[in-house]
Amino acid sequence: MGRFRGSSSTVLKPKTTQQVSQILKWCNDRRIPVVPQGGNTGLVGGSVPVKDELILSLSNMNKVRDFDPVSGILVADAGCILQSLTDYVAPHNHIMPIDLGAKGSCQIGGNVSTNAGGLRLLRYGSLHGTVLGLEVVLPDGTILDQLTTLRKDNTGYDIKQLFIGAEGTLGIITGVSILTPPAPQASNNVILALPSFKNVLPLYQTVKRQLSEILSAFEFIDRTAYDLAVKHGQGRALSDEDIEGAECFVLVETSGGKREHDEEKLSTLLESLLEAETPLINTGVLSQSPAQFSSLWALREGVTEAVSKEGKPYKYDISVPLSSFQDVVDGTREHLRSKGLLHDKAVKHVLGYGHVGDGNLHLNIVADSYLPEIQDALEPYIYEVVSSYRGSISAEHGIGHQKTHALHYSKDHVSINLMKKIKNVLDPNGIMNPGKVLE
Amino acid sequence: MGRFRGSSSTVLKPKTTQQVSQILKWCNDRRIPVVPQGGNTGLVGGSVPVKDELILSLSNMNKVRDFDPVSGILVADAGCILQSLTDYVAPHNHIMPIDLGAKGSCQIGGNVSTNAGGLRLLRYGSLHGTVLGLEVVLPDGTILDQLTTLRKDNTGYDIKQLFIGAEGTLGIITGVSILTPPAPQASNNVILALPSFKNVLPLYQTVKRQLSEILSAFEFIDRTAYDLAVKHGQGRALSDEDIEGAECFVLVETSGGKREHDEEKLSTLLESLLEAETPLINTGVLSQSPAQFSSLWALREGVTEAVSKEGKPYKYDISVPLSSFQDVVDGTREHLRSKGLLHDKAVKHVLGYGHVGDGNLHLNIVADSYLPEIQDALEPYIYEVVSSYRGSISAEHGIGHQKTHALHYSKDHVSINLMKKIKNVLDPNGIMNPGKVLE
Repeated sequence: MGRFRGSSSTVLKPKTTQQVSQILKWCNDRRIPVVPQGGNTGLVGGSVPVKDELILSLSNMNKVRDFDPVSGILVADAGCILQSLTDYVAPHNHIMPIDLGAKGSCQIGGNVSTNAGGLRLLRYGSLHGTVLGLEVVLPDGTILDQLTTLRKDNTGYDIKQLFIGAEGTLGIITGVSILTPPAPQASNNVILALPSFKNVLPLYQTVKRQLSEILSAFEFIDRTAYDLAVKHGQGRALSDEDIEGAECFVLVETSGGKREHDEEKLSTLLESLLEAETPLINTGVLSQSPAQFSSLWALREGVTEAVSKEGKPYKYDISVPLSSFQDVVDGTREHLRSKGLLHDKAVKHVLGYGHVGDGNLHLNIVADSYLPEIQDALEPYIYEVVSSYRGSISAEHGIGHQKTHALHYSKDHVSINLMKKIKNVLDPNGIMNPGKVLE
Repeated sequence: MGRFRGSSSTVLKPKTTQQVSQILKWCNDRRIPVVPQGGNTGLVGGSVPVKDELILSLSNMNKVRDFDPVSGILVADAGCILQSLTDYVAPHNHIMPIDLGAKGSCQIGGNVSTNAGGLRLLRYGSLHGTVLGLEVVLPDGTILDQLTTLRKDNTGYDIKQLFIGAEGTLGIITGVSILTPPAPQASNNVILALPSFKNVLPLYQTVKRQLSEILSAFEFIDRTAYDLAVKHGQGRALSDEDIEGAECFVLVETSGGKREHDEEKLSTLLESLLEAETPLINTGVLSQSPAQFSSLWALREGVTEAVSKEGKPYKYDISVPLSSFQDVVDGTREHLRSKGLLHDKAVKHVLGYGHVGDGNLHLNIVADSYLPEIQDALEPYIYEVVSSYRGSISAEHGIGHQKTHALHYSKDHVSINLMKKIKNVLDPNGIMNPGKVLE
């Protein structure tokens, strides 16, 4: 997005955990602040130096340490790129439990530090469940070795959980032990056009019941997002006739162990949806080939790129109750209209898409250019809306540098006080990634 | 097991979170220690008062607060009994993500406080992943409200994780928000007799690949455990001919969305196993009715009861690498033999069973009576063996009062020091469940 510019005069690229330990000890003794950096693909400025901190890059720690094909447990250096780990486990018929757009550059240590969500969360759960162990260098250089490969270990407090999502403010993750699921033998998808957003929830219930354990994605795209994706060449799945009168779209993906069984379940679902007395959908298109499968996904995944091509995006990654998705998008549009900001020279589009199964809405506001009055109209407005639903102001992107001032919309003062106490216990000199997460 | 006897003169049964808060504030001001108690079904004395502490029972906090049938998210008081929650969500076609033998008495707050594992962990993962939010009363009476119903929320440190598995030493959980999965439409199982333990691992790989997402349990029972279960009337699944030459048994369960598909997958698996050139199994019996399904499970679940009927059990709940299960059991038996303790008046049986999929071995030593020399022969011997494998001395039962002295076999001093610092931040006066987890 190009919204963050950092500057730092020093970048260190240690090759071993021992070196990370020596660097942190040295820095801690001298009160020199450190910003850990992985693939630098975050969206909230979590890995950007704000005051000439030393940058510690994990890029040179990029070896797989161990993989057990029976249990599927992988132990890797923090600097391993997600895609390379995916490639590593593939010949053993396993997949990584996370997948996200930035997989070609993001690193597993950064994924864990930011508690990355992504496209597989619905199926495989969050990293709090799939990460089995961590090796972390604490700010004073002490190495915390909890790099266990055990699925079950109830021996005291699960300290490693604190580092999952701490965005590098409590220590530097140097090694990750993670459970990789068996690779599905078949994947299918279908795109459904819905006459009204009101149908999304009953549709989700029906799909969950019928597809059960093979459901691997249930993604929502509103009409504006769809039109922009198509406009900017991100796949064209449906005919003009198909999309007539569609208020939004849902992409359903299945992943399972036997293609024929999965296809039968998906066809039965589509038939029952189309033949219902009061159909929840206008139409649905099943992918018939790997190319079509990818092209349906391109529609959903391409929204990000389409939005960037269309203008300057303001991006909000929020969790709100499923039933309020459309109200939040429409409400934001009306709010901007009421401020006189909804026109060609200010905000061009307000759109929503995201992971229905996770309650995660990506709310995008596409402007002609970044303007202070737009920013002022959006914040704290959106945060207040989220707070009124007891939602999350950052479902998966984190707090970073960008949202520290807004943390209180999702966490009350008791929680924030506890976070500060924990920060103080682990990093009393405040050298770890200052200005991130907590103000 | 009747191995723990506690005494306390006061039991309080608050009905609201506010009352829990008032009690803890009062106790904290006066430095009065408090033991939280749920269903009191733990196996390591975690809820037993050791020095006349005040007992705070959650039994009167037993209301479901909210359930959303679309997302499957349940919010309940900590004192709700697991079985009653299972019954509550059943009409909505959902199940609880955990299931364990004590479900008729254990409470959800206790399940979370002890990070209970149980029979569904292989399929649905640990509570660190399925618990979405907690309401906790801190030792000074402050209410930490993180009772969110969001699947994704990356706003700062995930503090609630600290209370999952803290066994009531950091605060009292009063409310739980948990993700309940859709109920499977069909469940099937099969018991397999194996000529050698060496076949368990390749069998696990084959079964995982063929059953993929419908595999919901892969349980191991060694021959001694099987024979004891049968002897004490815990179901009789196989004929004498079937079990001839079997060194161990595996129970495989599937849960899926469509009975015919699941049955086809299971039959195909069984056929391919039996027809292999070098079969991994001697024989296998597929359950053909709900009664048979239960009877196969009774064999596995009945081992606990059989062991209690047979004598006085010493129970170890450990995590070690799958490949070492049999070595650990055999090694322990030989160790006891070498000490002259393997005979009718001392140790009668050494047996192993457990969750292969989770790397969790239940190692049981059945004695004629509890004797100090047996205890001395078992500890620290078993802990040292576990430690040599970098295993867990308590996979799912926790540390409680019983195992505080052994914590260091699974956690190094860096980890234990951090635990102590965290305990000190949250409970500086040490009133919460003293003598548990940390010495």
